[in-house]
Amino acid sequence: MALKARVLYDFNSENPGEISIAENELVTLFNEEELEGWLEGENSRGEAGLFPASYVEIIKDHITSNTNNNGISSPKTKAVTPNHTSYTSPESQKGLGAGSGGSGGGSFHTSQGSDDDWDDDWDDGSPAVDAPQGLGTSPPLYPVTTSLPGRRESSQQQQAKSSATVGRNLNRFSTFVKSGGEAFLLGEASAFVKDGDRICVVMGMHGPEWQEDPYPFTCTIDDPTKQTKFKGMKSYMSYGLTPTHTNVQVNRRYKHFDWLYARLVERFPVISVPHLPEKQATGRFEEDFISKRRKGLIWWMNHMISHPVLARCDVFQHFLTCGADEKAWKLGKRKAERDELVGPNFFLTISTPTVPLDLQEVESKIEGFKTFTKRMDENIVVVNATISEFARKQMAGFKKEYQKVGQSFMLLGQAFELDQQAYSEGLNRAIAYTGEAYEVVGEYFAEQPRHDLAPISDLLDLYRGHLANFPDIIHVQKGALTKVRDCPKQEGELHDRCNIISCATLAEIQHFHRTRVRDFRSQMQHHLRQQIGFFQKITAKLEDALQRYDDDQ
Amino acid sequence: MALKARVLYDFNSENPGEISIAENELVTLFNEEELEGWLEGENSRGEAGLFPASYVEIIKDHITSNTNNNGISSPKTKAVTPNHTSYTSPESQKGLGAGSGGSGGGSFHTSQGSDDDWDDDWDDGSPAVDAPQGLGTSPPLYPVTTSLPGRRESSQQQQAKSSATVGRNLNRFSTFVKSGGEAFLLGEASAFVKDGDRICVVMGMHGPEWQEDPYPFTCTIDDPTKQTKFKGMKSYMSYGLTPTHTNVQVNRRYKHFDWLYARLVERFPVISVPHLPEKQATGRFEEDFISKRRKGLIWWMNHMISHPVLARCDVFQHFLTCGADEKAWKLGKRKAERDELVGPNFFLTISTPTVPLDLQEVESKIEGFKTFTKRMDENIVVVNATISEFARKQMAGFKKEYQKVGQSFMLLGQAFELDQQAYSEGLNRAIAYTGEAYEVVGEYFAEQPRHDLAPISDLLDLYRGHLANFPDIIHVQKGALTKVRDCPKQEGELHDRCNIISCATLAEIQHFHRTRVRDFRSQMQHHLRQQIGFFQKITAKLEDALQRYDDDQ
Repeated sequence: MALKARVLYDFNSENPGEISIAENELVTLFNEEELEGWLEGENSRGEAGLFPASYVEIIKDHITSNTNNNGISSPKTKAVTPNHTSYTSPESQKGLGAGSGGSGGGSFHTSQGSDDDWDDDWDDGSPAVDAPQGLGTSPPLYPVTTSLPGRRESSQQQQAKSSATVGRNLNRFSTFVKSGGEAFLLGEASAFVKDGDRICVVMGMHGPEWQEDPYPFTCTIDDPTKQTKFKGMKSYMSYGLTPTHTNVQVNRRYKHFDWLYARLVERFPVISVPHLPEKQATGRFEEDFISKRRKGLIWWMNHMISHPVLARCDVFQHFLTCGADEKAWKLGKRKAERDELVGPNFFLTISTPTVPLDLQEVESKIEGFKTFTKRMDENIVVVNATISEFARKQMAGFKKEYQKVGQSFMLLGQAFELDQQAYSEGLNRAIAYTGEAYEVVGEYFAEQPRHDLAPISDLLDLYRGHLANFPDIIHVQKGALTKVRDCPKQEGELHDRCNIISCATLAEIQHFHRTRVRDFRSQMQHHLRQQIGFFQKITAKLEDALQRYDDDQ
Repeated sequence: MALKARVLYDFNSENPGEISIAENELVTLFNEEELEGWLEGENSRGEAGLFPASYVEIIKDHITSNTNNNGISSPKTKAVTPNHTSYTSPESQKGLGAGSGGSGGGSFHTSQGSDDDWDDDWDDGSPAVDAPQGLGTSPPLYPVTTSLPGRRESSQQQQAKSSATVGRNLNRFSTFVKSGGEAFLLGEASAFVKDGDRICVVMGMHGPEWQEDPYPFTCTIDDPTKQTKFKGMKSYMSYGLTPTHTNVQVNRRYKHFDWLYARLVERFPVISVPHLPEKQATGRFEEDFISKRRKGLIWWMNHMISHPVLARCDVFQHFLTCGADEKAWKLGKRKAERDELVGPNFFLTISTPTVPLDLQEVESKIEGFKTFTKRMDENIVVVNATISEFARKQMAGFKKEYQKVGQSFMLLGQAFELDQQAYSEGLNRAIAYTGEAYEVVGEYFAEQPRHDLAPISDLLDLYRGHLANFPDIIHVQKGALTKVRDCPKQEGELHDRCNIISCATLAEIQHFHRTRVRDFRSQMQHHLRQQIGFFQKITAKLEDALQRYDDDQ
C-alpha cells in the first residue's frame, strides 16, 4: 500500500526539485525516510518532488484515528519504516505512548526491538548519505504562512526566519500530554522511586537549579577505529570512550549513542538532551565525515557530563562504564528499556526546595525565556550563515587574492632576473621570496576557518538542537500552569505538582543559561586566540620576507 | 574646418562608447584633446565614439607632407590645440624640430610661447578632468594586430599586453633622426661647450656610468597652497620646493614643472626624464587629486635629484633656486629656451672613458636591455592590475566580510542580552565588543591599501614612464650602430661618435638599473613594513577583545 501523508501547512516550492503542497491535501510518499528534513513524494496534482517533512503528517495504519496527533514530526523524528525495524525515534515513541491513553507506567518501551537486532548496521553503512549538506538546503522548519511580509526582508533575516527552529511547535499538539506532564499533574503517575533515583532541585542564587554533581568527571572520545564482523563482511566505526571516574575505555558505536539518546529523551521530559551530531549541519568546512562526527560527539559528551541530572543517570552510566561483557551490557540495556521512571513518573523523582515558587513569577520567567530562545535561535542562524559565508570567502576569494598578489610579485621578480647586474640579484631573490610568502599567506587564509569558524559553527549547531528542545519543555510547564488555573478545586495537590514541574523547568533553564555562558565565552576566546595566532603567523611570514631585503643588500 | 586624423592601426571596439577604426581610414575628430589616451570622433561609417589616440595620426595643416612623421603620438603627447596655444608637448616639439631639417643648433625653441602666456591657467583649471580613471579605462598603447593569439591568453596577460608601453615605438619614425643622433654622428653638430656643461661618463664596475654628483642634495615639496591673482579672479596651486643645497624655498606651479620637463626632454636625447604625474593613473585609491599630484611630484623630484646629469643641469638648478625675482626668472627661462646644447649638440658635451667600448658588446647589452624593459613593462602592468584589484577587494569585499562577522557577533550579543542573569552580562559586553572589534578590523582593511598598495602603484606608474622613454633612447643608439656599419669609410670619427652615444646610452641604462633596484627594494620594504604593522594592529585589536572575556568573568 502506498504511504500517504496529510499536509498540515501550505508550502510553496521555491527551488527546482521542490513541489508545492496545500493544507489538508493528501500526498503520496515515495519513501518515509527524511533526507535533511525533506521528504520525497507526489502531490494531488501529480507533481513529484521534495517538501519539508515537518509540513506533513504521515498517516500510519496502526494509529487509531481518535488521536488528534497532528504535526508531531520534528526535525529529528525518524518514522518507523519497514527497512528500519529496530529503530524507533524517542519522540515518536512518546507520541505513541501518550496517544494511546497517556496513563503512564510501564507502557513506554514496547517497540525497542529485540537484542537480535542490535548489531544491524543501519547507521554505519553509508555515512556519506548522512553527511549534512550545509545551510542552503535546510527546509523551513516552521510554516511561514503568517509571515509573508518577511519575504520582503533582507535575505539574512529571511534565512534566519525560514531556518529558525524555535517557532515550529506553535501549532502542534501539546506536548503537555505527550510528555506525561498532564498525567503527572492529574495524579495519575505512580512508581517506586529509590533514593538513588531522586533528583534534587535546590534554590540557588539565580533561582531553582539542579543540585550539582558531587563527583564530576569528564570523558575522552578517541579517534574512531574501523571494526569488522561476520568475517569481514560488515564493517563499522567504533569510538573509544574513557570516562575519568573509571579510567577504563569502553567501545561504542554510533548506534549505541543513538539508543542512549532515545532512552534519555523518554526518561527526562523537561530536560534538554543534546542532539547527536548526525543530523546537524556541519558539512561546510570540507572535513571528512568521521572527523566531524567525532567532534560532534565530543561536544555532545561535553554537554552530557556537565548536566547534573543526565551525567548521573543509570542509563548513561551503564553506557559509559559497561565493558566488553555482552551479558552485562544486555542486562543494563533491558533494564533501561524497562525503566518505569519515564514520562509522568519522571516527575515523581524530583525533590523541590521547601518554599514553593510563585507561579506568577514562574510564568513571567518562562515567557522571558521563550522570547530569549526565539531571538537566540533567529540570531544564531544569521551568525551561522555569516560565518559559513566568511569561511567560504576566506577559503576561496581571500586565498585567491593573496595568491594573485604573490604571483604578480613573482612576475616582477622574474622580469628583474633578466637583468644580470650583480647588485640586482639580492633584490630579485627577496621579491621572489615575498611572492612565495604571499602565496603562503593565501594558504593560511584558506586553512584558518576550520580552526576558528568551524568550532563556532559546531557550537551553534549544538545550541540549535537545545533551542529546538525547549518549546516542548516550555509546553509541559505551560500546560501545567493552565491546568492549575482551570481546576481551582484540587488546589493543594495540583499546586504542589505544578511546583515540581516548574522547579524542574526553571532548573533546566538555569542550567541552559550557565552552560551557554560557559560555552560561548570559551568558544569566543578560542576563536579570538586562533585569530590572533593566525594574524601573528602572517606577520611572522611577512617579517621573514622583509628580512630578505636586508640580507641580500 | 573639421579636424581629421589618419588611422595607423586597426582598432576593434571592445566596449560601449568605443568605435572600430581601420588602418588608413580617415576619421573626423570632435576635439583634438586626448582624454586618458582616448580621442573622440567619427569614423568613415558615421559611427561616433572613442578610439585610442596612439592609433591615429592627426593631420595638421602646418606640417609639410614630406615628413614621414607617422605615429609619433606617445601616451603623453598633447597636440597643439586652439584652446591651448601656449602648450606644446616636448615630444611633438622634438618631432617638429627634427622633421623640419634636423640640422641642430638653435632651432628647437621656436614655439615655446611668449612670457605673456606664462600665467595662463591651462593646467590648474579643472583637475577633476585630468584625474585618472584607473586601469580599466586605459586604451591599448601599441597595436595588437600582430598578437591576435594573445586574445586567447589569460585576461591578466592580455591586459599586460594591451596596456604595455614598451612595444609602441616599433613601427614609428626613427627617433634617431629626431633626436639629433644622426646629425651628431654625421659630424653636423657644432656648438661651444663650456667646462661647466661637460657631462662625464666614467667606467664603473658594471660598465659605463654617469659620474656621480659630488654635491648631492635633496628637495622637499610642501603641500600645495592655493594662490589667487587678478584680484581673485583666477586661482592656482603653488608648491613650495626647498632644495637642501640652498635651503631656500621657491614656489612653483605645475606648469613650471611642465615647462622644465619640456626643456629637459629636448636637452637630453638619451636620458630618461621622469614623466610628470599628471597623466599617470593613480586615481584608484580615492585620494584627492591634489594630494596624488603632490605625491607624484615627490617621486618625480626624487628621480630628478638622484640623476647625476639631470640634477646638475642649469635649467633644473634655475628651477630649483630662482626666487621670487620675476626678472631673474625670465632671464633664466629665456636662457634655457635658447640653450644651444640640445639635440645633436648634447652629444658634444659628453666625455667618455679613454678606452672605447666594444660595439659588439654594446649591441648585445642593448638587446638584453630591450628584452628586459619589454618584460618589465608587461609584468608591472600585471602587478599594477593585480594590486589595484586587491586594493579594491580589501576596500569593498574584505571590509564587508569582517563587518558582517562583526555585526553577526553583535546580533548574538543582543540576543544574549535578553537574558537578565547577572553572570551573563560580562559575556554580553565582551561579545558586543568583539563585534565592534571586527567592524574596526573591516575599517582597517579598507584603509590599508592607500598605505601599502598605492605607493607601489605610484612607483610602477613612474617606471612605466621610464620604460616608455627607453625605446626612443635605444633607437638613437641603434641608429648610430647601423650608420657605423653602413659607412665603413669615415670609420675613425664615426666610431668615436658612436662610442659617445653608446657610452651615454649604457650609462643611462646603468643608472636606470641602480635606481630601479634602490626604488623597488625600498618600496617592497615599505610595503612589507606597512603590512606587518597592519596585521599587528589587527592582532592588537583582537587581543583587546579577548581581554574582555577575562575582565568580566
